[in-house]
Amino acid sequence: MPNSNSSRVNNTVLPSEHAKFDPETIHQRLNTSLSLPQLNNDGSIRHFLGVEGLNKAQLQAIIAKAETFIDENGQLINRPELEGCTVMNLFFEPSTRTRTTFEVAEKRLGANVLNLDIASSSAKKGESLRDTLWNLQAMTADIFVVRHSASGAAHFMATEVTPNIAIINGGDGWHAHPTQGMLDMLTIHREAPRPFEELSVAIIGDVKHSRVARSDISALQTLGVKDIRVIAPRTLLPKGIERFGVTVYEDMNDCVRDCDVIMGLRIQNERIGSPLLASSNEYYKQYGITPERVALAKPDALIMHPGPMNRGVEIASSVADGPQSVILRQVSNGVAIRMAVLSMAMEGQRFHQALSSSAK
Amino acid sequence: MPNSNSSRVNNTVLPSEHAKFDPETIHQRLNTSLSLPQLNNDGSIRHFLGVEGLNKAQLQAIIAKAETFIDENGQLINRPELEGCTVMNLFFEPSTRTRTTFEVAEKRLGANVLNLDIASSSAKKGESLRDTLWNLQAMTADIFVVRHSASGAAHFMATEVTPNIAIINGGDGWHAHPTQGMLDMLTIHREAPRPFEELSVAIIGDVKHSRVARSDISALQTLGVKDIRVIAPRTLLPKGIERFGVTVYEDMNDCVRDCDVIMGLRIQNERIGSPLLASSNEYYKQYGITPERVALAKPDALIMHPGPMNRGVEIASSVADGPQSVILRQVSNGVAIRMAVLSMAMEGQRFHQALSSSAK
Amino acid sequence: MPNSNSSRVNNTVLPSEHAKFDPETIHQRLNTSLSLPQLNNDGSIRHFLGVEGLNKAQLQAIIAKAETFIDENGQLINRPELEGCTVMNLFFEPSTRTRTTFEVAEKRLGANVLNLDIASSSAKKGESLRDTLWNLQAMTADIFVVRHSASGAAHFMATEVTPNIAIINGGDGWHAHPTQGMLDMLTIHREAPRPFEELSVAIIGDVKHSRVARSDISALQTLGVKDIRVIAPRTLLPKGIERFGVTVYEDMNDCVRDCDVIMGLRIQNERIGSPLLASSNEYYKQYGITPERVALAKPDALIMHPGPMNRGVEIASSVADGPQSVILRQVSNGVAIRMAVLSMAMEGQRFHQALSSSAK
Repeated sequence: MPNSNSSRVNNTVLPSEHAKFDPETIHQRLNTSLSLPQLNNDGSIRHFLGVEGLNKAQLQAIIAKAETFIDENGQLINRPELEGCTVMNLFFEPSTRTRTTFEVAEKRLGANVLNLDIASSSAKKGESLRDTLWNLQAMTADIFVVRHSASGAAHFMATEVTPNIAIINGGDGWHAHPTQGMLDMLTIHREAPRPFEELSVAIIGDVKHSRVARSDISALQTLGVKDIRVIAPRTLLPKGIERFGVTVYEDMNDCVRDCDVIMGLRIQNERIGSPLLASSNEYYKQYGITPERVALAKPDALIMHPGPMNRGVEIASSVADGPQSVILRQVSNGVAIRMAVLSMAMEGQRFHQALSSSAK
Repeated sequence: MPNSNSSRVNNTVLPSEHAKFDPETIHQRLNTSLSLPQLNNDGSIRHFLGVEGLNKAQLQAIIAKAETFIDENGQLINRPELEGCTVMNLFFEPSTRTRTTFEVAEKRLGANVLNLDIASSSAKKGESLRDTLWNLQAMTADIFVVRHSASGAAHFMATEVTPNIAIINGGDGWHAHPTQGMLDMLTIHREAPRPFEELSVAIIGDVKHSRVARSDISALQTLGVKDIRVIAPRTLLPKGIERFGVTVYEDMNDCVRDCDVIMGLRIQNERIGSPLLASSNEYYKQYGITPERVALAKPDALIMHPGPMNRGVEIASSVADGPQSVILRQVSNGVAIRMAVLSMAMEGQRFHQALSSSAK
Repeated sequence: MPNSNSSRVNNTVLPSEHAKFDPETIHQRLNTSLSLPQLNNDGSIRHFLGVEGLNKAQLQAIIAKAETFIDENGQLINRPELEGCTVMNLFFEPSTRTRTTFEVAEKRLGANVLNLDIASSSAKKGESLRDTLWNLQAMTADIFVVRHSASGAAHFMATEVTPNIAIINGGDGWHAHPTQGMLDMLTIHREAPRPFEELSVAIIGDVKHSRVARSDISALQTLGVKDIRVIAPRTLLPKGIERFGVTVYEDMNDCVRDCDVIMGLRIQNERIGSPLLASSNEYYKQYGITPERVALAKPDALIMHPGPMNRGVEIASSVADGPQSVILRQVSNGVAIRMAVLSMAMEGQRFHQALSSSAK
């Protein structure tokens, strides 16, 4: 519901400063500012906007909740924790993969699910996005899953537009993709032979433009990983990335040596052949996750990739499909993680609203 | 099921006389002809085609049914009254807003919901619309929610094509948008401090091209409102509108003075700057719902708008978001009204079919 | 899950030999090769790829299962046999009609349903179709309903890509449309006054390009029909069709004389006026299912058509809507047949997987 000081005309969902932003600085700024609005005073989440600002216990609680949806054979368990709730998937930029995995999670929780292609529909009638969101809220939505090309979009909705709807960030600009980050943590937790504190993790590829990488690095650090290694062509690394507590490598073999986890990142096809990046052959030669390089890591090292993979560019097919690969398990764990954050945020919103109404 | 005299080839859903029609005369014609086919002999509805022809008790029954879906805190109550039923949303013209609110209502009633973009799909294969509808019926649909650009489309389906499917009119041409009309009545019933008989209601804007206005005027009159005022540029008023028992005003201040309800109508962007309408600034100056004009109405007057709003054209943002605005409550009430008419029409169809089969 | 020898890069779902194929020879080749992978050792189905290779008892079991979903008044019975299961409708080519009827069936079985337009989404990111399917499987899909323009696509998925997902063939190229074939069998079983063994069936039209015709002929033969007649312009008959045990007629009156079932096939609009086919008027004159020709068949002969119909080309409207037509009953039976094969394939997959895991 709009509050009384929102009477000005506002036709943009995002402060104009976000319209054109520098990916190298946005990370730092958002890192500090995005943490608190997703939490109730007792530390429970009522939105899921990012992993930044969540402490170790909170990340562990999400992992533990996700594991309640997986049985001893690794099969998903359905539980109608969102029965009667209406979830709207608001995709301002298309992403069939992310939308599908959210939709599966929502339906396994028993929710009523609506998929809305907001960008095209609201634009046609010239309605402000703010009004569109207020209208969807008034249609008795309980949860918005938001995918947006602008960094901070989910955060802005949660703080400025519809704070009483549980907002789940399904990926915003180059800032964060926190459910992807958390499914990586769940996968490492379940598959790695050692606890987070003892792991060496190598992240390979386009960290600069990867919403996944940012979420992963933050979550790994919070969960206690001390040795986080990063390698990419210099053009694909944010300036000053060392300040985040990661070690930048120049040589791929050094980077993966004795690692416990090798995480490849997707190279956007449109960057290949651009000034930022040599040919895909050249990339594979220097940064490809090959059997020879995997052999340099620990024998039980996990191979991870957020998908979709460019086989033969970021990773050899034999590695992607080999015994150490947990790439498809990441996908399955993604359903469990989404079930967890959807359920937890809904519960947190109910708690928040019960408190708010009893305070009146 | 086609009846025996439907053997001729018929490739159009609508009588050709409807193909190009005059919005000023269609209202009168449809007003008298569209009333009865939606009713069973006991007065219960089995289609919901329009508010015209429904008497006061029938409109009150819809309002009362809708209120059974709202709890004492104004929250929606789910009730699986359509469990096992298959509802097909047939949108021959796109309307994300209307489709979404119907979809929410249907899912809250436990229905199986299918969204079909009929226009594009049937056209491709050259199948007649009549055959398409018969096929969808044979796929065991129970309810069609129909949105069509041609006036009388829902009525034609209910009488000529698929009378044994409960047809809900989700807006047809410039003729009617009866669920919008009824959600406005529900909102006035719940929010206005006086009963319908004592209210003065001002309707501002493009009555001529508004499917909402027509439904509102008819419902208000049936519910006992005696003072209905209308104002708009002359080009946006149907000729002879006075015959419908409304008072046409020339001056906006006079129109809203001492009113209980101020209803703005949406101005289609494409009309602004056309010969029909001066600039949007000029419109706002003459017809805009401003704080100053709201101050002329009763202190507890309701501000309503069917959305999407053009802020700063039809209405000031401070009024739209102000304490007297019930614009977002209209949206929420729209879910309850749609739950009501869906459930009532399904029940009426079952009753009708039980009678029909026992009569054989 | 990819097996160990699938490590090569493979960017196509189909062997390249299928890319451009001759519809006249593909039928024979697929006929013999597609039979077995859909069956468990006990003869139960775990995919539903085609009717070829299924024996009489198996086809009868599908018909019998479908009839459990139809009550004594011909109404569909919902039964939540897929509750908790996730069904993904993978439509690589659009078909609103087939998708809708599958979606109705899936929802009546209580499944969680996702509609995916795979072709457009996976292509964008350059991911191989194999990876796309593995990802969807990892998102915990239980059933894929597949519609593809390439013959053998469903078979290839079931054998090479995702054998542990129940694959339902919703139509592949010119090869097969087995649920359409089975709904025709269900309709004949329920409506024809004589058992299959005693029937004469006339199939009229474009057998060469019809996925339906191929499935129908195979199923009719397996169910014991001895007299299958075929007529079409020579250009629309596969060479050597007589080898399939059907009788080719030159004269339409001869073809339908004393028949029990007359099945029209759809003529693709784009073929009319092409070298393959004279004008639609000429077609109707030579091959149209007219009242006069129906009068030559048995008095209780059934009139069938898979839809969508070209009225006045393949069939007279008075015949399509007349008392002998079961065309709309075919559509309703299509829901029951799809409920049957979805439920049976899911059960067969569970059985298969229980066996596989106990064998380890």
